[in-house]
Amino acid sequence: MEENKRKNTIELFDSTLRDGAQSEGITFSVQDKLAITEALDRFGVTYIEAGNPGSNPKDAEFFERAKGLKLRRAALVAFGSTRRKNSTAAEDANVRSLLDAGTEVVAIFGKSWDLHVTEILHTTLDENLAMIRDTVGYLVSRGKRVIYDAEHFFDGYNANPDYALATVRAAAESGAETIVLCDTNGGTCPLRAAETVKRAIEAVAPVRIGIHPHDDTGMAVAVAVTAVQAGARHVQGTFIGYGERCGNANLGTIAANLQLHGGYDCVPESSLKNLVATAKEIAEISNIKLSSFMPYVGASAFTHKAGMHADGVLKNSRSFEHVDPAAVGNARKFVMSEVAGRTAIAEKLKRYFPEIGKDDPALGKIAARIKELEHEGYTFESAEDSLALEMSRILGTYRQYFEVVSYETLTGNPSLDPKLSAKAIVKVRVEDKTQLLVAEGDGPVHALDLALRKCLEVFFPALSSINLIDFKVRVLDSRDTTGSKVRVLISSTDGYDVWTTVGVSTDLIEASFKALTDSVEVYLMTADGRLHANRKKQKQ
Amino acid sequence: MEENKRKNTIELFDSTLRDGAQSEGITFSVQDKLAITEALDRFGVTYIEAGNPGSNPKDAEFFERAKGLKLRRAALVAFGSTRRKNSTAAEDANVRSLLDAGTEVVAIFGKSWDLHVTEILHTTLDENLAMIRDTVGYLVSRGKRVIYDAEHFFDGYNANPDYALATVRAAAESGAETIVLCDTNGGTCPLRAAETVKRAIEAVAPVRIGIHPHDDTGMAVAVAVTAVQAGARHVQGTFIGYGERCGNANLGTIAANLQLHGGYDCVPESSLKNLVATAKEIAEISNIKLSSFMPYVGASAFTHKAGMHADGVLKNSRSFEHVDPAAVGNARKFVMSEVAGRTAIAEKLKRYFPEIGKDDPALGKIAARIKELEHEGYTFESAEDSLALEMSRILGTYRQYFEVVSYETLTGNPSLDPKLSAKAIVKVRVEDKTQLLVAEGDGPVHALDLALRKCLEVFFPALSSINLIDFKVRVLDSRDTTGSKVRVLISSTDGYDVWTTVGVSTDLIEASFKALTDSVEVYLMTADGRLHANRKKQKQ
Repeated sequence: MEENKRKNTIELFDSTLRDGAQSEGITFSVQDKLAITEALDRFGVTYIEAGNPGSNPKDAEFFERAKGLKLRRAALVAFGSTRRKNSTAAEDANVRSLLDAGTEVVAIFGKSWDLHVTEILHTTLDENLAMIRDTVGYLVSRGKRVIYDAEHFFDGYNANPDYALATVRAAAESGAETIVLCDTNGGTCPLRAAETVKRAIEAVAPVRIGIHPHDDTGMAVAVAVTAVQAGARHVQGTFIGYGERCGNANLGTIAANLQLHGGYDCVPESSLKNLVATAKEIAEISNIKLSSFMPYVGASAFTHKAGMHADGVLKNSRSFEHVDPAAVGNARKFVMSEVAGRTAIAEKLKRYFPEIGKDDPALGKIAARIKELEHEGYTFESAEDSLALEMSRILGTYRQYFEVVSYETLTGNPSLDPKLSAKAIVKVRVEDKTQLLVAEGDGPVHALDLALRKCLEVFFPALSSINLIDFKVRVLDSRDTTGSKVRVLISSTDGYDVWTTVGVSTDLIEASFKALTDSVEVYLMTADGRLHANRKKQKQ
Repeated sequence: MEENKRKNTIELFDSTLRDGAQSEGITFSVQDKLAITEALDRFGVTYIEAGNPGSNPKDAEFFERAKGLKLRRAALVAFGSTRRKNSTAAEDANVRSLLDAGTEVVAIFGKSWDLHVTEILHTTLDENLAMIRDTVGYLVSRGKRVIYDAEHFFDGYNANPDYALATVRAAAESGAETIVLCDTNGGTCPLRAAETVKRAIEAVAPVRIGIHPHDDTGMAVAVAVTAVQAGARHVQGTFIGYGERCGNANLGTIAANLQLHGGYDCVPESSLKNLVATAKEIAEISNIKLSSFMPYVGASAFTHKAGMHADGVLKNSRSFEHVDPAAVGNARKFVMSEVAGRTAIAEKLKRYFPEIGKDDPALGKIAARIKELEHEGYTFESAEDSLALEMSRILGTYRQYFEVVSYETLTGNPSLDPKLSAKAIVKVRVEDKTQLLVAEGDGPVHALDLALRKCLEVFFPALSSINLIDFKVRVLDSRDTTGSKVRVLISSTDGYDVWTTVGVSTDLIEASFKALTDSVEVYLMTADGRLHANRKKQKQ
């Protein structure tokens, strides 16, 4: 039993902070790297490769500051390469910087492909073997646990299998605890990967074999999974797939695949429920939008749009879901759209207006209105609260709490106060009273937000508890350039609920103002019991 | 030889217009569908599944209008399902609509998984077999070529292999020319898929077997490739992977994998060079941003950021590229960033300032300036022309052609002219002359663009030939909401060259204005010979 458990245990090695930083569009500060380290440790990966202290002074600073982190489970790994040709490991600056990083575990890469040895390093095949032996041996003699990354192993094995195997044997014989086969250029298919993994296992057993795939042919996750099925017990990737060119293997996807579908142990059982939260946190720190279509964690990963699928999944969730979305912290969703069936619209309606039945004639009118607004460029898939307002208009439960008489914005440069470069003037009417106020802000939308709320707080003091927590702009048809349509999404909170509203216009200010007024109306309608709030609580 | 060629020929079946339309965020008009059909035919897929005429009146209209298309290679396919339980195929409205679509080929799906038969259709296993036989047989008797989609085949085979095989045997015996095994829920791994494909081939030979994977575990492309290696000769996917939940298998990636790495024939030899152009065209019609990281076609797919990779690929491109980017119509790129090596910066500098050598001391200053600006939120990866301006400042070749004395914008609502809701006032100075002008526009950025150019055209009449062709807004840190930093990218053309500039500020107006003035400066510097233009020509 214990033996069986060990055989099924897979080490997860995350390289978001090292290989992930090679991704176009990614730049991590030291603070970002510390925050991502803590998120990965909370999730439960085995190793966190955090940088190359020898090539990047920022990484050296990171390792210095990381000494203060209290990690629960993960080991930090410093990354470097085999020594330079025709020297010794002890006098190599890069190798010394690995010792200085102060981690128990180090990862070093070396060459497996004869082409790289002769054409890129310009050295001999024998000297490359000596570089591997010296570097691994020296680091082991200095008390380090060494993970050896066999760069280009699959291409090298195709070109010259004997030499490629000789390089990993050299690393294993010199004391490396894990030999990682890298598909550095990403051109290897799963079947070929499995075959090659088996040959490498035969060559270095009982040393552990790992896999490090890249996604240039869109098969990195599959190569990792297939390599594990062939006997690899260590997987390198980046948590949401960032990396050079098309990216590294998505480690979050691999963890879920291995644990939920393959019966392997990667992370503590309770961890997978944090898959979505961890992916979102890393994406947010990286300032990259998480793809909606990313397996397990994407906003659309468990979204049913076809009427037949929505219908089936309500009868039996297994019918159109490969796993329970809750197992990874995601949730099932039905999309509002012209192809959505009445079932999905009825589900959504029930959430906001529990008193409306599945056969209410309003359903048809709502479907038609959704179609009309989508045609104008609206989308309610992530702005359900604006949709709820539309529904209330059709159902006759809508109440207009205030009327905007006018609004204006002014920006100027040079300005007296560069922090508050714009002014907005808003006039609202509530019953027979009007209120006219001006506010300054950092840009015209910020100024408008402040002016609108200042006016309305005079009538509805509870509005002072509302804060905006997200603001997104999407240019809908960039072919018409500065005169093209924009869609603005705004998320608001009262510290308890979170709601999202949308505005569309060719004028960005107008689109933003529409989303802002919707946000206030949703709050007032909900406080009034005209909309049923059944939203996720905001993370404290 | 001929026999060998036939054995290696793979049919590509694109379902962008049917399964792809199930993707969250996608809505196709009939015009969109006609344009995508023509793009797919030009690329060279074998089949284009264009919709379900029985469930969607828009699709019925499409098939009517598609009768006027002259396709060179692809066959249009209408999609539907087996007849309803306890009826006949001839009297089934859905089956009749397939005949009405007027295509030579039809695809119908039926149930393979006993769970779906009993719990979703609420019928008997025998009646489901009769539904398959009746529907396939009836359509064949009416002269149609029938592709049979075995929905949930892999889940069905796992649950009840005998029954799953009985369903595909029923379809094959009734005259279906291809049996497509669908991994509808996307939970199947490549090795399991290959095993199951082999069992199905044994059951229905010599009828052709196809594969239709979904990407819920991130392995759809690999499942398709592995199924082909196991004997499947027909692959269903969507050109850039759109589809329900996490999407369908990316057919463009599969075509390139099979043809460039696997030695299979999927499309005419010259077609793969149009892979990028076709993917971009479909993404543009769909109004979806093509992921930069998409294999083969993404803007980053052949982008080298690590200094060592850039260095290696310049020595020998095979060292860090799995295929030649030109084979799919893409291009190698070196990214400007703090981790970029001097080699990459030198390459970029050479393009704009061919007279500067690789060892010029300016390189170090430029690297430091890039780092500083990236820290402020700038990114030059897609705005190289703003970077060229920065470089020229450091090199001392920069010339200031004009000075902006001030600019203001005013927006108001209600406005007299809803089409021109904003005004901008710009004052510029050139030598000792000033020019003050006001312009109206659709939103403040549009008005600013017009006012700035009207002022400058007084001094530089050639500017009248400039048009903006793209405008993108990205909120950098949405946690600070309406007061957060935004990055604006603007692409401009003079009808010949295209250039892209960037502005960053917490004020959207200021960020836009910075990108606008950069655009004008790049044009004037280039016209003056101070910047070397070596840009892609604009598509006419």
